[in-house]
Amino acid sequence: MNKKIALLGLGTVGTGVINLLRENEDLIHSSSGVNFTITHILVSNTEKTRNADVSGIRVTDDINEIQNADIDLAVEVMGGIDSTKDVIHSFLSRGIPVVTANKDMLAIHIDELEGTAHKHQSHLYYEAAVAGGIPIIHTMQHSLNANKISKVMGILNGTTNYILSKMTFDGWTYQDALKEAQAIGYAEADPTADVEGIDAARKTLLLARLAFNKKFKLEDVDLTGISAVDIKDIKLAENAGLTLKLLGVAEEIENKYHLAVEPIFVSTKHQLANVHYEKNAVFVNGNMIKEAMFYGPGAGGYETASAVVSDMINSVTVKSECSVRPEEYGLKTEEKADSAYYIRFNAHLSETEAYLASEDIQFDIISTAETAVKTVKINEAELKNIKDALAVEAVYKINGAE
Amino acid sequence: MNKKIALLGLGTVGTGVINLLRENEDLIHSSSGVNFTITHILVSNTEKTRNADVSGIRVTDDINEIQNADIDLAVEVMGGIDSTKDVIHSFLSRGIPVVTANKDMLAIHIDELEGTAHKHQSHLYYEAAVAGGIPIIHTMQHSLNANKISKVMGILNGTTNYILSKMTFDGWTYQDALKEAQAIGYAEADPTADVEGIDAARKTLLLARLAFNKKFKLEDVDLTGISAVDIKDIKLAENAGLTLKLLGVAEEIENKYHLAVEPIFVSTKHQLANVHYEKNAVFVNGNMIKEAMFYGPGAGGYETASAVVSDMINSVTVKSECSVRPEEYGLKTEEKADSAYYIRFNAHLSETEAYLASEDIQFDIISTAETAVKTVKINEAELKNIKDALAVEAVYKINGAE
Repeated sequence: MNKKIALLGLGTVGTGVINLLRENEDLIHSSSGVNFTITHILVSNTEKTRNADVSGIRVTDDINEIQNADIDLAVEVMGGIDSTKDVIHSFLSRGIPVVTANKDMLAIHIDELEGTAHKHQSHLYYEAAVAGGIPIIHTMQHSLNANKISKVMGILNGTTNYILSKMTFDGWTYQDALKEAQAIGYAEADPTADVEGIDAARKTLLLARLAFNKKFKLEDVDLTGISAVDIKDIKLAENAGLTLKLLGVAEEIENKYHLAVEPIFVSTKHQLANVHYEKNAVFVNGNMIKEAMFYGPGAGGYETASAVVSDMINSVTVKSECSVRPEEYGLKTEEKADSAYYIRFNAHLSETEAYLASEDIQFDIISTAETAVKTVKINEAELKNIKDALAVEAVYKINGAE
Repeated sequence: MNKKIALLGLGTVGTGVINLLRENEDLIHSSSGVNFTITHILVSNTEKTRNADVSGIRVTDDINEIQNADIDLAVEVMGGIDSTKDVIHSFLSRGIPVVTANKDMLAIHIDELEGTAHKHQSHLYYEAAVAGGIPIIHTMQHSLNANKISKVMGILNGTTNYILSKMTFDGWTYQDALKEAQAIGYAEADPTADVEGIDAARKTLLLARLAFNKKFKLEDVDLTGISAVDIKDIKLAENAGLTLKLLGVAEEIENKYHLAVEPIFVSTKHQLANVHYEKNAVFVNGNMIKEAMFYGPGAGGYETASAVVSDMINSVTVKSECSVRPEEYGLKTEEKADSAYYIRFNAHLSETEAYLASEDIQFDIISTAETAVKTVKINEAELKNIKDALAVEAVYKINGAE
């Protein structure tokens, strides 16, 4: 079976797709029976030198040329939001399935695009949009489908995980780690989307949508980035067996939903604490499976292409007879679950201890020198009272602490 | 869409399937459009009291009654090898898809049964046969399908992982840990299949078959169990940052294959070192994704039912147009890859050091008191020479040590 592909975009991932298809051509053909032929590539600059062999492929900067071409599948790895959505919309409207890696666009337009796909009996695939090469989207759709999912939590951004790993292992400051990440190409010149948690929020939204079968808006995701993280807190908490990770969290609380991206301490013995540098991982809680984790590369041209090409293969070999789309928006919960916290005070130990004891708040000392404490589970009101009563310099949730 | 199910077996997993279908009925219907109705259950004793509501279901000990009934899908969770293969064969021959959790049977008969399924345009599903609730089978088939897989390595047996965890965390002897595992129902009265690695070998074979698209025979899997593990070695190696795990390993070495189950030390910082007690995990190396890991429950009625029911749903909603079956047997490699080893000697440190230095074998001291050493990578001949020259009391491979 031959399939003609239009590849939209020829950056790192697009190049990875071309090279993967060439390198694993025989394997893909023998295991799926499919031959993929890239017939068209859309680029913004046709003059640029490429790291992939594009001989025999029509390389153009004119989307209209591709829209009118005879293709079986469009693969979008070019980025862009509204205009890219329009391009994808037009393929889906003509019954042409689309594979996309574009989380920025999907976080805003996925509901519309899945509606278009459904209407025109086409299909939208987006494995590569969340957690790079980790097959979490297909797994949520096809393997955890007998479970009522209560929570999804993950390290969803390689850039911030790289920075936090550098701070944790090498004791670097945030600024130094960021500079290094920029120097080796892990972080952009403007790192805002990564370090403020926006990128992770997009992926959290896409996971929550699948987990709970509800629509969500990006502004419903509570955001705290890592740009204010002080190396001091990472070091103090290390002594208490805690590791700081930027986590995307989506959980159901009595038919409402809490979506957030924030730096959270996890036990060094937790699976997520051992996900380092550019790696990603997603933890899923379901009512039957209890917990499962999926770990792998969060970025990289070939790694992401692995997800893109698996979608390409599945678009041909797997026919889903039923595809669910959420109809309603998930309501945002106002209630915050009780949590243990790491809190660092600008106050003497005796004063801090006296207050916490007077309020009957249980805590462990992490460091008397710096007056950082680890509380046993407290509620929102108690946290607020602590902040009002004492000079609090840093507060982080501790995941799953007893 | 209504699907009539024959459930063969009503033990822990069968009971889990019934209860899961009842508890998550609405979720499954709304997400897949399918209503599953269990119409028949095969049991060996119709008089036994059950932990599931079977009212309205025909419960019988006569397989012929079920063979002649009007059903859409058979779900086999009863165990047994040759006779069970015959039962599954007869369903597949009539075009009825079969979901099975039976790794004992599959490790011997999967090639024949997939042939039967192919011939009669039916399908065999076996997600629950490997690593309990972890969706590794579907993932290998549908999500890592753009990768050339070079290695699969995992903690595939919950019983032995429970025993090793007890030894590691609580310092128990193997015998005490085994007794505890038997007392709480994790180990059988005759624990041979678990502790000697046979169960893990069956799962390793099934993973290798998918990874390399080759047939394998169970006798091709090199077996070393955990019954000879001395708590002394776990404790000594702990100081060197090593944790002992029973690993199923399948790797390709120049178009030949090495399949083994053996206790191997992994770094405490490795993802697999933090998979404890009854949990399982599978590590996969592919040429595009580099490495990925899938972690979750290795056993349990509901956890395994999660995998069984996902197969049931996919048997209805997903139509694979192409399904590959291996045609040839994988050749067993005679070559053993170089490895680092943990070696404990019954010899004085000075004698051990002198020999290793004379042979130019690089090593780290783990414990001078017990003369246990951690070698840097050595080859098979060097290991044999060491064993010939010195009184070796224990040898374990160290995974991925530099």
